[in-house]
Amino acid sequence: MPLPATREERIAQLRRIFMPRGVAVVGASPTPGKLGNLIVNNLKNAGFTGNIYPVNPNFPEVAGLTCYPSLEAVPGDTDVAVVAIPAPAIAGLAPAAGKKGIAGLVVISSGFAEVGQRALQDELVKAARANNLRILGPNIYGYFYTPLKLCATFAMPYTEPGGVALVSQSGGVANAILGYSRSRRMGVSAIVGLGNKADIDDSDALEFFGQDPNTQVIALHIEGLKDGRAFMETAKRISKVKPVVVLKGGRSSAGAKAASSHTASLAGEDRVYDAAFRQSGLIRARTLEDLLDWSRALQLLPDPAGENVLIVCGAGGLGVLMADACADHGLRLPPLPPDLQQAMKACIPPFGSVNNPIDVTGGEGAETYRKVISLALNDSRVHALVFGYWHTPLAPPLAFAKMLIDLVKEAKGKGIVKPVVVGLAGDVEVEDAVRLLEANGIPAYAYAVEQAIGALAARYRFWRGRRE
Amino acid sequence: MPLPATREERIAQLRRIFMPRGVAVVGASPTPGKLGNLIVNNLKNAGFTGNIYPVNPNFPEVAGLTCYPSLEAVPGDTDVAVVAIPAPAIAGLAPAAGKKGIAGLVVISSGFAEVGQRALQDELVKAARANNLRILGPNIYGYFYTPLKLCATFAMPYTEPGGVALVSQSGGVANAILGYSRSRRMGVSAIVGLGNKADIDDSDALEFFGQDPNTQVIALHIEGLKDGRAFMETAKRISKVKPVVVLKGGRSSAGAKAASSHTASLAGEDRVYDAAFRQSGLIRARTLEDLLDWSRALQLLPDPAGENVLIVCGAGGLGVLMADACADHGLRLPPLPPDLQQAMKACIPPFGSVNNPIDVTGGEGAETYRKVISLALNDSRVHALVFGYWHTPLAPPLAFAKMLIDLVKEAKGKGIVKPVVVGLAGDVEVEDAVRLLEANGIPAYAYAVEQAIGALAARYRFWRGRRE
Repeated sequence: MPLPATREERIAQLRRIFMPRGVAVVGASPTPGKLGNLIVNNLKNAGFTGNIYPVNPNFPEVAGLTCYPSLEAVPGDTDVAVVAIPAPAIAGLAPAAGKKGIAGLVVISSGFAEVGQRALQDELVKAARANNLRILGPNIYGYFYTPLKLCATFAMPYTEPGGVALVSQSGGVANAILGYSRSRRMGVSAIVGLGNKADIDDSDALEFFGQDPNTQVIALHIEGLKDGRAFMETAKRISKVKPVVVLKGGRSSAGAKAASSHTASLAGEDRVYDAAFRQSGLIRARTLEDLLDWSRALQLLPDPAGENVLIVCGAGGLGVLMADACADHGLRLPPLPPDLQQAMKACIPPFGSVNNPIDVTGGEGAETYRKVISLALNDSRVHALVFGYWHTPLAPPLAFAKMLIDLVKEAKGKGIVKPVVVGLAGDVEVEDAVRLLEANGIPAYAYAVEQAIGALAARYRFWRGRRE
Repeated sequence: MPLPATREERIAQLRRIFMPRGVAVVGASPTPGKLGNLIVNNLKNAGFTGNIYPVNPNFPEVAGLTCYPSLEAVPGDTDVAVVAIPAPAIAGLAPAAGKKGIAGLVVISSGFAEVGQRALQDELVKAARANNLRILGPNIYGYFYTPLKLCATFAMPYTEPGGVALVSQSGGVANAILGYSRSRRMGVSAIVGLGNKADIDDSDALEFFGQDPNTQVIALHIEGLKDGRAFMETAKRISKVKPVVVLKGGRSSAGAKAASSHTASLAGEDRVYDAAFRQSGLIRARTLEDLLDWSRALQLLPDPAGENVLIVCGAGGLGVLMADACADHGLRLPPLPPDLQQAMKACIPPFGSVNNPIDVTGGEGAETYRKVISLALNDSRVHALVFGYWHTPLAPPLAFAKMLIDLVKEAKGKGIVKPVVVGLAGDVEVEDAVRLLEANGIPAYAYAVEQAIGALAARYRFWRGRRE
């Protein structure tokens, strides 16, 4: 039996997998520390909204739930079987799963292509196809879908909802988003391990999350592509609808060698990937930090109306560093129109600068900042505003943050919406200001001021990609 | 009168400026918010160990301290006059300062070369030379020397001691180190603004901090060099003694333009700087985040004994990303010697990898980590250890951190000391693990796992620079 013929049918099947009514756990175990025990406990403790059916012929009960001897014996609706039994036994589950009407097997187990057992993997996919099943994995940490409080994983559970879906070939990358998201208050819609990508791959994930109303941004970590052409076709389409950030593991030859033993990925020429990502409208991150930071900012930032970025700074040196970062990230800092330049000049000391960056100079109080920011926000020729804040007793961080939030809200009340990002240098109070700004939708970065530019540039790339 | 003839005499004069017995503040003011008020209050509140002498003919008292009408009227020993009066009046202070035996004027005031007033700046230097004074600035936020609790600045004070001296052309950069240092527990020995570098420049700062026993690492932020040849000569010498990290603002043409109105710096060709930095043994950071992170790590990390870096990871995907970062930063990941490979193989599951990176695989507990780390620490053919940790219920972050700390201590007891760095992916508990690891001298990074590699590479660059 082939895959469903139409995209709509394929998405419908994926929807059953990512948003299941019930989940069976094959290989459930009462022994603490066993994967089959951790998975059942995570599902249960995270508060999965559907039914959980442990499956193992050797035990009557797991984690306080009735344990069934086989998939056939499971009494209720179940769309997914999460599998944690030895690799060679997994293909044998397919007929029963098919008969039960299950949509997909989520195969946690390792022992397939990543250790040279490609035949075993092929056999698994063949059995799945013959029974109208899709395979997620094998060799994965599991998957999460926060709107259903679904944490089908042996690793750390996570249920704080938000708009970012992370699709990864690594549990490590999946794990990094947990603490980052909690610490930086991002929120995720889903975390999905693709592992060896025996069947469900990046294209499938893009198709599903592209239409998922709970997902605003897609973060993709890949080590290799199964079908580059199909991926590019799908990515080109989805990246017009939602921003897709991609981090490619195995850029270098040392990394590529490691990726081959990790997920049996053929990393290929990095230049080829780079060109493919660009042509597909994907936003390429070079590090995990950028993948996370940009995903978060993409969720917060609105589209700009044009290419004119304006930097305003309280300390000239920050403006210089931010201007360098603009050059690195392909952002334009045009000179100000003469009338705006004059208006700015009237606000700042004579030794300041009204070139772009505007240097308010270090000894100014909040009132100067307010005037300059108001001018920038209310001028339609300024399309995005970057602020390089430095901490002085004259304009403390929290007071500055509150003022900026008020000005942005005031502008919004007049129908003016543009991207605003902030980098803050100062004592630890700037971390409080970062939290306040971000709670109000303004991406902000303490100490690492240039990160603000990378985040803004990510939004610019998404915007430009839709105008081409 | 020329500069002191010998290096020793020049350093002796700089020592009086950076470690003064007393500080006069010319332009002291009782009005809150005025620079001359902020400076006196910061000096006083930070607990400067020497005397503070406000100077202003218009007031009898500033911040509870007697205010003197002129420098001549100051009763006690004072090695420095911090100056916050209008630019045109400053050169006129030089004769009185010289007569008083002051070693240097710290000129906070703006209004010199950065706004086209080069003649005024030249006049100031000429007056200083004629009176045996050095000039720090003009156009600066001030300077800090924490061993004396000296905070001669109108910006935020800072007194937590540590081994990093930051020399910058920007108050913003100086400010970023405050919160970063407090938040990441780095500690600083000094923060020095060079501003327009009318006189004291990077070479002078390198000379002083190169011999300062309170400084272990020098972090340098520059926008331009006054005398490139002299700088290289000094940097080449000092970088053999202490690590010097440099961040150059104005790498791009947009940034260079901004630098020119900020500190009147001619940024010049970036390739020329890059070559000069390399030839001088400086460790070049491209962002403020790297300048801070690397400075901190350089203080914590010991030298390696050779080029063999080993990555061990709990999640294969982190190992791949870290291997990519090694390639970016010029670190070598040689294959393991066969006997060590065999020993490692015996510790991990068959689907793990004993290539470099070693992939312990995701389902292992703390005991596996312990065995693998012990092997790596105790083998003299492994010169530096990178750990890519991922958070599972089987090896929680704090337990992992404690184990690693114990193993490193145990090795130290046997005389084995090598650089160890950690990247951690997981839920927010990894942030606690980071704090614990760093309190025990192991640089660690939450979420942004590749930062661990950049930090290690910084130490490698310092080590290699001394072997050439």
